[in-house]
Amino acid sequence: MVVTYRDIARAAGVSTATVSRVLSGAGGFVRPELVEHVRETAQELGYRSHRAARALRRQRSDAIGLVVSDVENPFFAAIARAVEDVAAEHRHAVLLCNTDEDLAQEDLYLDLLVGERVAGVIVAPSTEELGPLGQLVEAGIPTVTVDRKVGDGTFDSVLLDNRPGAVALVEDLLAHGHRRIGVIVGTTAATPSRERLAGCQEAVAAVAGASLVVGEGQLRDAIGTAGTMELAGRLALDMLSAADPPTALFCGNGLLAQGVLLALRHSGRRVPDDVAVVGFDDLPLFQLLDRPQTVAAQPTDRIGRAAAELLFRRIDDPDRPAEAVVLPPELRWRASCGGDHSTTERK
Amino acid sequence: MVVTYRDIARAAGVSTATVSRVLSGAGGFVRPELVEHVRETAQELGYRSHRAARALRRQRSDAIGLVVSDVENPFFAAIARAVEDVAAEHRHAVLLCNTDEDLAQEDLYLDLLVGERVAGVIVAPSTEELGPLGQLVEAGIPTVTVDRKVGDGTFDSVLLDNRPGAVALVEDLLAHGHRRIGVIVGTTAATPSRERLAGCQEAVAAVAGASLVVGEGQLRDAIGTAGTMELAGRLALDMLSAADPPTALFCGNGLLAQGVLLALRHSGRRVPDDVAVVGFDDLPLFQLLDRPQTVAAQPTDRIGRAAAELLFRRIDDPDRPAEAVVLPPELRWRASCGGDHSTTERK
Repeated sequence: MVVTYRDIARAAGVSTATVSRVLSGAGGFVRPELVEHVRETAQELGYRSHRAARALRRQRSDAIGLVVSDVENPFFAAIARAVEDVAAEHRHAVLLCNTDEDLAQEDLYLDLLVGERVAGVIVAPSTEELGPLGQLVEAGIPTVTVDRKVGDGTFDSVLLDNRPGAVALVEDLLAHGHRRIGVIVGTTAATPSRERLAGCQEAVAAVAGASLVVGEGQLRDAIGTAGTMELAGRLALDMLSAADPPTALFCGNGLLAQGVLLALRHSGRRVPDDVAVVGFDDLPLFQLLDRPQTVAAQPTDRIGRAAAELLFRRIDDPDRPAEAVVLPPELRWRASCGGDHSTTERK
Repeated sequence: MVVTYRDIARAAGVSTATVSRVLSGAGGFVRPELVEHVRETAQELGYRSHRAARALRRQRSDAIGLVVSDVENPFFAAIARAVEDVAAEHRHAVLLCNTDEDLAQEDLYLDLLVGERVAGVIVAPSTEELGPLGQLVEAGIPTVTVDRKVGDGTFDSVLLDNRPGAVALVEDLLAHGHRRIGVIVGTTAATPSRERLAGCQEAVAAVAGASLVVGEGQLRDAIGTAGTMELAGRLALDMLSAADPPTALFCGNGLLAQGVLLALRHSGRRVPDDVAVVGFDDLPLFQLLDRPQTVAAQPTDRIGRAAAELLFRRIDDPDRPAEAVVLPPELRWRASCGGDHSTTERK
């Protein structure tokens, strides 16, 4: 583990500000005997001055890059936290980059990270083709894809088992009598939306008379809290006011669900009496709603940790075969689907 | 504005994948006449190959650093999006770093950014003392502080007008008859918690018989969604089960409020009948709660944009005097304070 100023301050019995003054040379008066005491304590704890360490590396930075498609999506924020925890254990910093699902922006950030000679990159790519990730291969930089995959299995990857989660959510809607189901997803150029939509299609295909109506965001439409919510609300209201409207909505992620719920409220529609709502991701306030939301929750901490651990294993052993970790979502059955679920889990 | 692959794809009438293959050299077959067509279109639109551009800079990176204390706090995620929008307009990338309110981690990231010769840094510092920011001064790197300030006015800064917002929220609680008010805040080593607590104290001091009970997080306690919620819930329940419990709770930010609301629900307490709840930050789902939450909302987009604009002005003109931008919160009066507010704004 990284030794922090707080650790040193606690062990030395001084404030973190004093530790900072002594170790970062940031200025301010500290008594000389205290300076010595703090330095000794830091040494005893194994504190590593990164200024000194930097002179030793040269060939490779002790930073890794984490490239996500939407930093405002709580899913990616949680991934970032987990990646950083593992990186700290390996004494690496994390440079976080946000692509907004734009290939040029992704290409630019990967180019920047290659230029900085980062030790490795974890990326949620905007496309399942090789695309901008080609330059990581050329530069020989260890790479793990997270949440999304690229077609040819070149890279280590950590993915959610999207399809069965979507099948289970939609089967539950069908079991509650819904036959026309609206699907609200982001761009299907990336893995999660494509696989979740496929799960919806699979479940509906098994029941006579059941059908889907699909509302899909375009590249970069479903970005950021405001953009995603506006898109999702518009897609939902369009479906509900068209001919043959759905009686239930499947939301591809938590931000989309949030946008749908707000649009339903503002248009005077009640959940689940007027329309049922289920989806991927469990936002904390979902369980406080009048009709708590049924969800397929993603194990963000496990996903982020697995991606970082794969990356450091790849850094240590560049020649090992590529590995794909697939983690299951956790289904949490609540009242928003129109049934009589209690708020506990069904399976 | 930055010209994206999508812009080029649209203008050239091809897919973004084709544009990526041509411009990033990422491989894959493209007909030669199409290659020429895409290159010409890119040139007409003014697309800048960053590989070529990088050879031109040398002295200064075309990246800026954004150093935040908790990437899982939606406040900072929204700031990151706004900063990135402005940076893109100035053709700069943003490297996002997360400090978890730890001075050593902040020092490490600033050291890393100095080493990468970033064009400038926007930072939410963990302390109001100069601390790790001293190395930015030494290296002559343009710096703007956001959300927090450092004491001596060296840096440009963008801050929320915290104190009047807290005064208004607590005055409203007092006007509804509450006399014992619990305050749940993060670390008061940083500006927002310190100023918001001061606002609570000011409002309570003006009313005979009114008093505060303060629950304060320690450095790094209130980090991440899970950590913040757990801390806030524990502080709230401790207060409510102690002697002379509060009848209303003031929450220092949206994540803390979320944790308080969940803990109240799980302990069987109702808002506002058992305890009123108000706080800073407006999370989208707050308005969908059974008793929607009264809040002082922060103008995150304006805060982030102002910080980035100050930074690029500072980069262009290093000698201009330091500027402090202070933006007001927006008070949104709803039902959680125990009164009969409608959900529209009162002032």
